[in-house]
Order: sequence, then C-alpha cells, then structure tokens
Amino acid sequence: MGLLDYFRASRPKGSASVAKERLQILVAHDRAERGRPSYIPRLQQEILEVIRKYVEVDMSAVSVKYEQEDCHEVLELNIVLPDSATGRL
Amino acid sequence: MGLLDYFRASRPKGSASVAKERLQILVAHDRAERGRPSYIPRLQQEILEVIRKYVEVDMSAVSVKYEQEDCHEVLELNIVLPDSATGRL
Repeated sequence: MGLLDYFRASRPKGSASVAKERLQILVAHDRAERGRPSYIPRLQQEILEVIRKYVEVDMSAVSVKYEQEDCHEVLELNIVLPDSATGRL
Repeated sequence: MGLLDYFRASRPKGSASVAKERLQILVAHDRAERGRPSYIPRLQQEILEVIRKYVEVDMSAVSVKYEQEDCHEVLELNIVLPDSATGRL
C-alpha cells in the first residue's frame, strides 16, 4: 500500500465533498534500546512551531495521538487548517 | 489498520533481528485549492533541522520520497540513525 493510499484510507469518512485544508504528520521512531527517555514529545512541540511559520494553526484544531509499544513509538498530529489558510511565506 | 501496524508493515524485511535506530516522518497535506505553491519542501528542511537538535543525522542516511496527486501531497523522510545515536539533550 502506498502512502497516498494510507492517507486516503485514514481520512474521515464523508469529507470528500468538503475541501478542507488538512495537515497530518506522523513521526515513527524505532529505538535500538529501551529505557532512554523519548525526545518525541519535545519534537512534537518544535514541529508545530515550524508549521506555524507557514500556516495559521489554531491549537484547538490539532489532535495528537501517541502510541508506544516495546521499542517503537509513533506520534500522529492531525491539524485542520482554517478555510482561509494561506501560506505565510 | 493502526499506525503502528502501518509502520511495522513498511519496515524493511529482515531487519527485525538487527536493532537499528530509525526515524520515519510523514507529512500529508490535503489542500483545499490547487495551484498555490507548496511549502512542504521548505517544511522538510526545517523538520530535519529540528531533528538534528536531538540526534545526529548523517544526511547520506536520509531518504526522501514525495508523492503528489491532485490536492494531496505526501512527504516521507526515512532516517537511519547511527548505532551510537544518543539523544543530544
């Protein structure tokens, strides 16, 4: 399955006809060793700051999902951008 | 399919026994309008800079894939971290 297929499948149902501007960011980390503290939560904040340079992000429109299992961790950020979203640069 | 399953499925075959430190970053953008220039390539550079604050990244160990179709674009960064990778902070 290609990436575009994955994102198409994960898009909320019924949204096809409403052209919403969305950003989805996934960060997956395979760790060689357990036990070290994860830097992913800090990375999350910094990635959001980078995105806010380019588009307006209403923090209430950001949903965060974090899954961890053994040496794998995945962070998912889903951001619905405002309808008037225009690039800032 | 959950995210962890997706990443498990997308992991290179035969690598299960070798505990490699890896980071995979996906950025998917659903655009409401076509024709505006994409900011994703610039975002890619900035995200890499953020990651390099936390871990050493050898640029030759970064692979980039970019797919675009209609109003959807997906950027995938795959980074193999050095064996000695320790968090920088």
